[in-house]
Parts: sequence; C-alpha cells; structure tokens
Amino acid sequence: MDRPLVALVLAGGTGTRLYPASRSDRPKQFLPLVGDRSLLSRTVARASFADEVFVCTREAFASEIPDHAPEATVIVEPDGKDTGPALVYATHRIGEVVGDCVVLALPSDHHVGDGGAFEATMRTGARVAAETGSLVAFGVEPTRPDTGYGYVEPGADRGDHFDLAAFREKPDAETAARYIESGCLWNAGIFAWTPDALRRAALGSPLAPLVEALDAGDPETGFEAVEAVSVDYAVMERAEDAAVVPAAFEWDDLGSWDALERVLDADAADNVALGEALSVDAAGNVVASDGKHVSLVGVDDLAVVAWDDRVLVAPKAEAQRVREVVAALKEEGRF
Amino acid sequence: MDRPLVALVLAGGTGTRLYPASRSDRPKQFLPLVGDRSLLSRTVARASFADEVFVCTREAFASEIPDHAPEATVIVEPDGKDTGPALVYATHRIGEVVGDCVVLALPSDHHVGDGGAFEATMRTGARVAAETGSLVAFGVEPTRPDTGYGYVEPGADRGDHFDLAAFREKPDAETAARYIESGCLWNAGIFAWTPDALRRAALGSPLAPLVEALDAGDPETGFEAVEAVSVDYAVMERAEDAAVVPAAFEWDDLGSWDALERVLDADAADNVALGEALSVDAAGNVVASDGKHVSLVGVDDLAVVAWDDRVLVAPKAEAQRVREVVAALKEEGRF
Repeated sequence: MDRPLVALVLAGGTGTRLYPASRSDRPKQFLPLVGDRSLLSRTVARASFADEVFVCTREAFASEIPDHAPEATVIVEPDGKDTGPALVYATHRIGEVVGDCVVLALPSDHHVGDGGAFEATMRTGARVAAETGSLVAFGVEPTRPDTGYGYVEPGADRGDHFDLAAFREKPDAETAARYIESGCLWNAGIFAWTPDALRRAALGSPLAPLVEALDAGDPETGFEAVEAVSVDYAVMERAEDAAVVPAAFEWDDLGSWDALERVLDADAADNVALGEALSVDAAGNVVASDGKHVSLVGVDDLAVVAWDDRVLVAPKAEAQRVREVVAALKEEGRF
Repeated sequence: MDRPLVALVLAGGTGTRLYPASRSDRPKQFLPLVGDRSLLSRTVARASFADEVFVCTREAFASEIPDHAPEATVIVEPDGKDTGPALVYATHRIGEVVGDCVVLALPSDHHVGDGGAFEATMRTGARVAAETGSLVAFGVEPTRPDTGYGYVEPGADRGDHFDLAAFREKPDAETAARYIESGCLWNAGIFAWTPDALRRAALGSPLAPLVEALDAGDPETGFEAVEAVSVDYAVMERAEDAAVVPAAFEWDDLGSWDALERVLDADAADNVALGEALSVDAAGNVVASDGKHVSLVGVDDLAVVAWDDRVLVAPKAEAQRVREVVAALKEEGRF
C-alpha cells in the first residue's frame, strides 16, 4: 500500500456511566481502568504501527492529551456532536495535513486484548479501504448475546471482507441471540477509509452541510449546521460502498462498571476489584476505587465505586442506571 | 446532699463496629455521629450539672481528650481491661483527689435525647447512692425488644428505685420479648456509687487484687493481676446492695451503623444519611460519610459508610458483622 496509514483516535467523549471515576473534567479515556496506563494511552500505543497518530478531542480536554499521547497531533473539534461530525472534520483536517492516506478511526476508551490479531486486522481493513474505496467497519466475533452492544450484519463474502448489509442497534436479549445465530458481529466502533471516500459518502448524508462548510474553510458554521449524530447511522449505513472486516481480537467497550468482570481476574468468590478490596461472605461484586480500601460483608452482585470524594453503590446488573445518578447530579451542577 | 457529685466519663473504648469511621487512632467517642460535636463532647456537656468532671481514657487517646472536654480532668488507665478495672481505678483516683463524693459513671459514646429527664434521673440515682450506700444502675424504659442491648431486672420496689435483681446479657428475640413483658429495663451502662461503696463491693469480686494494689499505691501491678471484665458482671451483679433507678430519657448505644436510623431523620424512602447522599430508587439505606457524596441506585437496606480512604458496604441488618471486617484488618495490621 502506497498511502500512509494514519490512526485517528477519538477522545472527545465523557463516559458518564463510569461515574464517579469519570467526571465532567476527567473523561473515561483518561482513566487507568485496565493496567497502569489510561485507556487513551493504551489505544495510542496499540496504534503505534500507524505512520502517524492524531487525537481528536474537545477543547476542554485538549491540554491533557499530551500527558497520555505525547507523540500524537491533537485536533480540537469545534463542538461536541457525537462521532459523525467529529470524524468528518478530523478526517478532513488529516487530508489537508497528510494528503491522501488511509485513516483508521479508533475509539479511545475501549479495551482490546493484547494478542497480535489487532494490528493484522487493522492492516487488512486499511488495505480494503485503499483498494476498494469503501468505508470499512470492523466486526468483532461475539462471545455472548450482549444487549449492550450494536451489531453489524455482513452481506456478500468478498474474501478478506464482507459487504456491509446493515447496522443493528442494541438489541433485546431475544434479538441478540437471533443476531448471533445469523452471523452478525459486534460493532467495534472502529473504521477505515480514505479522506476522499468519507467525503463522498458524507456528501450523501445529513452531514453534507458540514462537508460544504469545510470546503469553504468554515468548520464552526459547518458544526452549527448539523445535528449530533453517530457516524454509523449518519454515514456508514447510507454509504454505497461499505464493507465489514471480521475481527477475532478480545474487545470490550467498558461501557459500565459490570464490564470490569470481563477484563479483571476474579477471586474465589467471583469478586473483581480495581484497587484494594476485602470481601467477607460477599460474592460476585465489582469494586473500583482510586486507592481507597473497600470492605464488603454479606453483600452480593453489587458494583461499589469510590473515587475522589464520591461513592456509588448499585446492583451490578443495573450498572447502566448510573446514568440516572449522573442526570440528577448534572441538574445540581455537581457532575 | 452534702457530698460533691462527680461525673466520671469512660472514654477508653474503640467502638470497632463503627469502622471505618472508628479506627484504632480515632475511637467512636471522638466522632460527631449526632449533631456537630463529638459524642464525648456531648456527654461532657450533658454532665455539666456535676460539680466536677473526670474523663478516664487510655494512654493513646489522652492527648486528644482536651479537644473534646477542655474543662475535664483526665485520668489515664494503666491498661485497657474493660469497664471493671477502669471504673475501680478511676473511682479510687477520684476518692484520692476529691474525697468523699458520689461518682456518676457515664459511657462517652452513647446517644441521649435532649429532654430534661436525664439530669433529674441522674440526680435521683446519685441521691440513692449517697443515702443507701448501694451501687446504682440505671435502667432505660425499653421501646422495643432489642437483641443488641443488655437488660436489668428490677426487684423489690423501694419508691424512687428498685433493688437490682439481675443483669441479663444480650438476649435472642424471644427472650427479649419475655424480658420486656416481665418489666426488665435496658442496661444503660450508667452507674452511681460512692468511692467507699465501690471499694467494698470490688473487694468481694474478682477485682479484689486491684483494690489491694491500689491501697498499696501500685496500680500497674493491680491491672496485671486482673482480667478484662465489665463492671456489670464483675461487681454490680455480686454486690449485696445494688439498686436500679428507672430512666425515661431517649437513649441509644449507637452500637452499629443501623443505629443511625433511630437518631437521624429519614427521607421519603426511609433512607438516612450522615453526610450527603443521593438516592435513586433506593430505600431503607443508612449512609454515613466524612463529607464524601454517596450515590445509591436500585439498592435497599444497605449500610454504606465512607470515611478517609476506607469504604464499607453491608446489609443494614448485618451491621454487627463489621466486627468480621475489623478482625480481618487487624490481622493485616490495617485497622
């Protein structure tokens, strides 16, 4: 492949469901949830095979990016409007700076296992993007009918990739089982494309006003003209040439506290802890702290999180409901 | 009554069941669990009708007593051996310093309601102690068949007091109901006696070697010669002349975290909080913190405590089991 391979790491989100570790001024990607380094730092390290690395983030987080990704070039998005506008904008900027290339768009706050499959899979996707001019999604082989993930449905088999038949939103349990039965894959939120391919696809999407404003050199007006929307539904699903590359690496979006069960080692009673915990007749709990010592006695299947001057307790199975806590705190201006 | 009335506040305990608020270097009596002031400070203020106030504590806590009780005289017990040796020793010291008097022995870590009944009841007990030479216990009118308290059984009615028939250890639920049916009272752990009366009774008890050593001016040897034992069973129950004065004030020993339910106001979902808490679909919980903000979502009937760099979560009904956590932490030298 002649084109340079550019990693574009998206680091503008907040990850509110990981409150109180994630806060308005400390988004999820800055947290060391797996190992000693932040998720962002690990993502950038994982992408080190790329010729260049860019990190796209919001103004408020920009000054901290070098702490996590000292070698990366920072792109500041004019406004936080989900992944669609951010990726169209950042890919446009990369095209201006680097010229023709293949962009590999990577979330900054997911967990990927350490096996070698990641780089090989990314290189395959980049080659497909360069050779076919398609927008390429990556579909992770599911290990369970997860209702917290989106799915991608592969279409015709093209050898090292599939046509993209459809994106599927987070399903209920029955639908998730059917998706897996029919060969759907987890949508990893990772994409590969050339700047030109994304530009053409975005022109046929609700993001067209942004593309036109970028052409006119006025990104602020472009962001004002579009809604907050994910790239999956705004662009990928409408694209005439979209592909799926299957991925076999271990992957988790660490979307809520119960996810720690899947990435940390459990004790004999199936408790997992990020930080120090003491369990007495307590089983199946998830503990996370910034160094505080957490004792559990006689409780099962809870998520207990202590960070800074905040504590959260919820049933592990209802970890998604942290959203409700954050909503209440935001109303008080205390998130 | 000619004899001076001396309040003797016992402040040598640790209150381990209130971990993590109570720690090896911060006993329960130093904590502001009700209102803004420590339990010790409130106890001393409550005893301000006495002519003098002494606080008996262990060496490790002695330097902090003036922060809570600036006007009190501090007595340091040679060793921590429960209330029996401490009260015999401190009463002996008071006899040396003050001369003949009535000593009112008060725990420093209990809650007493603000009504005026406390002083009147204490004065009655002191008068009985002075006039009859009895050792006087105080029995609180029970409001429920509590299994966490000891009971005192009144004997013959003597007008303003009863003979003491027996002390009863913490009962099971059925026994507690029977105690209440038969007129038993909660043992408040408060006593009144003259120095001479306690000396005589202690000479007929397992604490006799301590009395003899005190007479010989050698308290250290006296403490080495006796076991750790409560004054209730070592002295009071064996005494020939022991009395009970009934008490009608609100009283709680704040023995474990579930006790906060009884002394704090609840929200609409029956949650109580010492410190800031946010409850979303959570009911019947007890929260306590040193200023940390605690969020609960979807959990019921838990005790959640956050103090310093420690967090504890247990079912409210199993709050006694904090002992098990403390035992494990002590083994690690981390209590």
